[in-house]
Amino acid sequence: MTFKEDLGRRAALVEAYLVGCLRDRNIPARLLASMEYSLLAGGKRLRPVLVLAWNGLLGGDADKAMPFAASMECIHTYSLIHDDLPAMDDDDLRRGRPSNHKQFDEATAILAGDGLLTEAFVLMTETCLVKGLPAERVLRAIAVLARAAGSGGMVGGQAVDMELTGRTGVPLDELKKMHAMKTGALLTAACECGAILAGAAESDVDNARRFGRKIGVAFQIVDDVLDVVGDTATLGKPVGSDEAMGKTTYPSLLGLDRSKTLAREYVDEALTNLSGYFGCEQEFLWQLARYIVDRVY
Amino acid sequence: MTFKEDLGRRAALVEAYLVGCLRDRNIPARLLASMEYSLLAGGKRLRPVLVLAWNGLLGGDADKAMPFAASMECIHTYSLIHDDLPAMDDDDLRRGRPSNHKQFDEATAILAGDGLLTEAFVLMTETCLVKGLPAERVLRAIAVLARAAGSGGMVGGQAVDMELTGRTGVPLDELKKMHAMKTGALLTAACECGAILAGAAESDVDNARRFGRKIGVAFQIVDDVLDVVGDTATLGKPVGSDEAMGKTTYPSLLGLDRSKTLAREYVDEALTNLSGYFGCEQEFLWQLARYIVDRVY
Repeated sequence: MTFKEDLGRRAALVEAYLVGCLRDRNIPARLLASMEYSLLAGGKRLRPVLVLAWNGLLGGDADKAMPFAASMECIHTYSLIHDDLPAMDDDDLRRGRPSNHKQFDEATAILAGDGLLTEAFVLMTETCLVKGLPAERVLRAIAVLARAAGSGGMVGGQAVDMELTGRTGVPLDELKKMHAMKTGALLTAACECGAILAGAAESDVDNARRFGRKIGVAFQIVDDVLDVVGDTATLGKPVGSDEAMGKTTYPSLLGLDRSKTLAREYVDEALTNLSGYFGCEQEFLWQLARYIVDRVY
Repeated sequence: MTFKEDLGRRAALVEAYLVGCLRDRNIPARLLASMEYSLLAGGKRLRPVLVLAWNGLLGGDADKAMPFAASMECIHTYSLIHDDLPAMDDDDLRRGRPSNHKQFDEATAILAGDGLLTEAFVLMTETCLVKGLPAERVLRAIAVLARAAGSGGMVGGQAVDMELTGRTGVPLDELKKMHAMKTGALLTAACECGAILAGAAESDVDNARRFGRKIGVAFQIVDDVLDVVGDTATLGKPVGSDEAMGKTTYPSLLGLDRSKTLAREYVDEALTNLSGYFGCEQEFLWQLARYIVDRVY
């Protein structure tokens, strides 16, 4: 099995769970349609896959951790719906289709986002209440994820992103800090929560967190690079939108070559946290980290 | 101490906790200002007070349950911010002040709501991780609250409310169901979670849930009545806004007198769930239930 096949297989397992996870919850029909429109719009399912890979690497059971993994995709999806709103990035297109508020309407999109964020926490509790993982572990993982997704993490990062948009002379460390909050926090939490749910030792949880931090930065740099050199069909959104919106990016500060080198350096640092582990999950995480940066080479 | 003094004393305890609960979380300054603008805008703090009263009635410690109680106010506040948005109810005024998106801007208001909802879950975990309540209890309470606040509860109720607005001939049972989701679910969860966090027996948890359901309906009927007979200064919002927006209400379906009688009947049913308990928390809950409906007499 090639790495891409392995990634596809793992994403398909997450997909299968996501398809049913909002049913039997008494959700009004149009709201459910709007939530599923965005949740089931494809995507690499990177965050759930990271939860399950770190969980598996440290001895966890994928079936038991699955609701928690799925919750990360709910949170990621809600953030995309709200980011696309007219008052925010005002994007009409997401993953090659009309964004949620274009397909439905603004009120429904706001509520679909609110609903996905809240259902994510229902899913997290199910790793204990349905799947039987110890309440202490699940509660700790919820705390980690809530902080990462909240106003000191992802939501705060989006607020800072809005403030920086259109501003010139944004220094590199401000850009880094914004991205660490906006995209890095959730990727980091995915790795960390996977380890916590496996009942791993603190040193393993530390490795997971550090790995997540480094690939989080690499991921964002590559995202910025692809916005310059990618094509609309692959990205599912217009190329050059960062520049059009007046966003400071790694390429705009460092140039393309230096950005690509920096992404590779972060991936190399991430990989140091995988030494000392063995087996197919270690191999997968190694290749996943390389894959993030290889997309721009 | 009169009932109103008791209510004020309890609200003040919640207030004191809310003032500091978002600090030390690395929240960007403008976002924090926006979150606190709405969170600390006054209000009766009814949901936290209900958590603490049921918790106390069943032997719980108010200090330990406080973060969970505060989380309910974060969720209530986020729902008000999002409901006021131009794409939703488009309200410029809330509690006698400019609504969040008028005071700040739409993007900030959306993010402040997202942030308050997410921080609520951080607070919930703190009842275990900081205050030491058993993880099993806290996890169960989180599951109850997340379902109540989510797309099958409060968020779903707002979606149905938007669908029903402007429609004529809405039957009473559809109105009841919508309100049971939109406002009833959270009030019910407040009582139920208070009991769960106290480690109460299942029969006590059932009583708390039933009490919450009944006062939830009464509360909404009274809210509708006050929108007709109240005054702007007391309400902090324009009188008659329901009718102006084309909303079906209890008075519009049943008339004022029948609505007031119905509210009183629901309160009387709620009170049956307090028989068999004794002491100052029982007395307080009794008077609180009466107070809800007495506001229109």
